[in-house]
Amino acid sequence: MTEENTVYVGQKNVMSYVLAVVTQFNNGASEVNLKARGKVISRAADVTQIVKNRFMPSMQIKDVRVSTEELQNEEGTMSRVTCMHFILTRGA
Amino acid sequence: MTEENTVYVGQKNVMSYVLAVVTQFNNGASEVNLKARGKVISRAADVTQIVKNRFMPSMQIKDVRVSTEELQNEEGTMSRVTCMHFILTRGA
Repeated sequence: MTEENTVYVGQKNVMSYVLAVVTQFNNGASEVNLKARGKVISRAADVTQIVKNRFMPSMQIKDVRVSTEELQNEEGTMSRVTCMHFILTRGA
Repeated sequence: MTEENTVYVGQKNVMSYVLAVVTQFNNGASEVNLKARGKVISRAADVTQIVKNRFMPSMQIKDVRVSTEELQNEEGTMSRVTCMHFILTRGA
């Protein structure tokens, strides 16, 4: 995690990312950025719902941004990957 | 597809859903609803980017809604699944 208040979703268990988000809020963050690329976008969507349903009912999804990134693989060819960025707020 | 201007993303190839969205716009829809549940949410995100990057550069994602649905399985136990609903517009 290079950016402040940002959680990058990867291949770990979904609860790892749920706890990372909840911890950021508990440490005083008013917004948490949740980012995912490719197939784990659906895991990031699950993270938002588990945070809200089990830990922080007031949590709001302030914005969802979808974008495309170009990545270069080992052979030098470019491929496109979809990125999703959820901006989560503490809510009421 | 039971609702007008709605494309439900499932297990087919991503291009099936890209073409379904583009066809709806070509048939005069000003908005297209793209919906997905569970693991295929990441495929729906890919659909938005392929429509925009290859077919309709003006297309905008007007809103993204994330919700939870409860489903009853064959044994009668409830399980929760994350749903994502993209509202796409024709744009400028």
